[in-house]
Amino acid sequence: MTYPSVLLANAVNEFSRLPGIGSKTAMRLVLHLLRQDVEVVDAFATSLTRLRNEVKFCKHCHNISDTDVCSICSNPRRDAATVCVVENIQDVMAIENTQQYNGVYHVLGGVISPMDGVGPSDLQIASLVERVGRGDISEVILALSPTMEGDTTNFFIFRKLAASGVKVTVIARGVAQNDELQYTDEVTLGRSIVNRMPYKQ
Amino acid sequence: MTYPSVLLANAVNEFSRLPGIGSKTAMRLVLHLLRQDVEVVDAFATSLTRLRNEVKFCKHCHNISDTDVCSICSNPRRDAATVCVVENIQDVMAIENTQQYNGVYHVLGGVISPMDGVGPSDLQIASLVERVGRGDISEVILALSPTMEGDTTNFFIFRKLAASGVKVTVIARGVAQNDELQYTDEVTLGRSIVNRMPYKQ
Repeated sequence: MTYPSVLLANAVNEFSRLPGIGSKTAMRLVLHLLRQDVEVVDAFATSLTRLRNEVKFCKHCHNISDTDVCSICSNPRRDAATVCVVENIQDVMAIENTQQYNGVYHVLGGVISPMDGVGPSDLQIASLVERVGRGDISEVILALSPTMEGDTTNFFIFRKLAASGVKVTVIARGVAQNDELQYTDEVTLGRSIVNRMPYKQ
Repeated sequence: MTYPSVLLANAVNEFSRLPGIGSKTAMRLVLHLLRQDVEVVDAFATSLTRLRNEVKFCKHCHNISDTDVCSICSNPRRDAATVCVVENIQDVMAIENTQQYNGVYHVLGGVISPMDGVGPSDLQIASLVERVGRGDISEVILALSPTMEGDTTNFFIFRKLAASGVKVTVIARGVAQNDELQYTDEVTLGRSIVNRMPYKQ
């Protein structure tokens, strides 16, 4: 594709590097921005550079934060003795949105995945072990994705924490709300029968 | 959705304003950028502000350009007496990619569409009439979309140019290459029979 302008070509190329954005979509987005006021485009560009240059990661839980310690870790009304281990920042936001959890988090930054070249040392596992080792934590909840990689990571963390004697739990797995049983995969369905619970009204 | 960081929220909001990008995709793109080097994000941001602030529109054809007159209009090997009228910049690029056209262009910036509040005065129609009025142009090719809006605009331009005596043509319509006849819509198929051409080997 030959572009009528180098500036245009540069902007389209930059957008095309983003995941899931091809050159046609990039072109559409760039031409959209070109029709906006200068201030709008400047605000967009500034928000990106400020994000990359100024955003911090909480030194306790490694969640994104504007301060050294994030708003969850620094909140005195949260239960700092319960730590929920999650894969990434979106998972923190998803759990926060349920309004069912009052503890704190630990963001691993991924899961162990030899296929993608991600080993335990690429994740925030050592800092979790150290955090638990300080003795202030009573329960570690493993809330990783129910995949092979998630299960591997769960097992690895469980082994690493065994010496500390901390209580390690894993989020419940079973049929999802509003799922139709006949379309639920057999592993999930089988496990939901094995792990059946007393009926509560 | 509550974000753990104001900087993150700002960047996600800016991305969400782009057409076709929802808050989840925006989050994914922003977290992708956050994992890149500072220089990569700076280059991205700079390419956008430079585009918006420095890009020019050719004073003859209104195509995007880095200079006052675009590379097509200033190319002495192009036939400046043939003008192809198109809706937007992507159409110029699409026609250029065919390598079948050696004339110059005139970018309208849209088509007449009363439903969207786009009238003739919002488009580069007056400048086209003026350009033809200078007497250097022998043929105007109408290459707008084969839609009701495109046809309306074709008719409007044809009427405006009638006094000048310039030859006005319209790009051929018919069955597209590799289309299956049985699935071609009846207007297209009917018109392709009415406008049949002598067989050329």
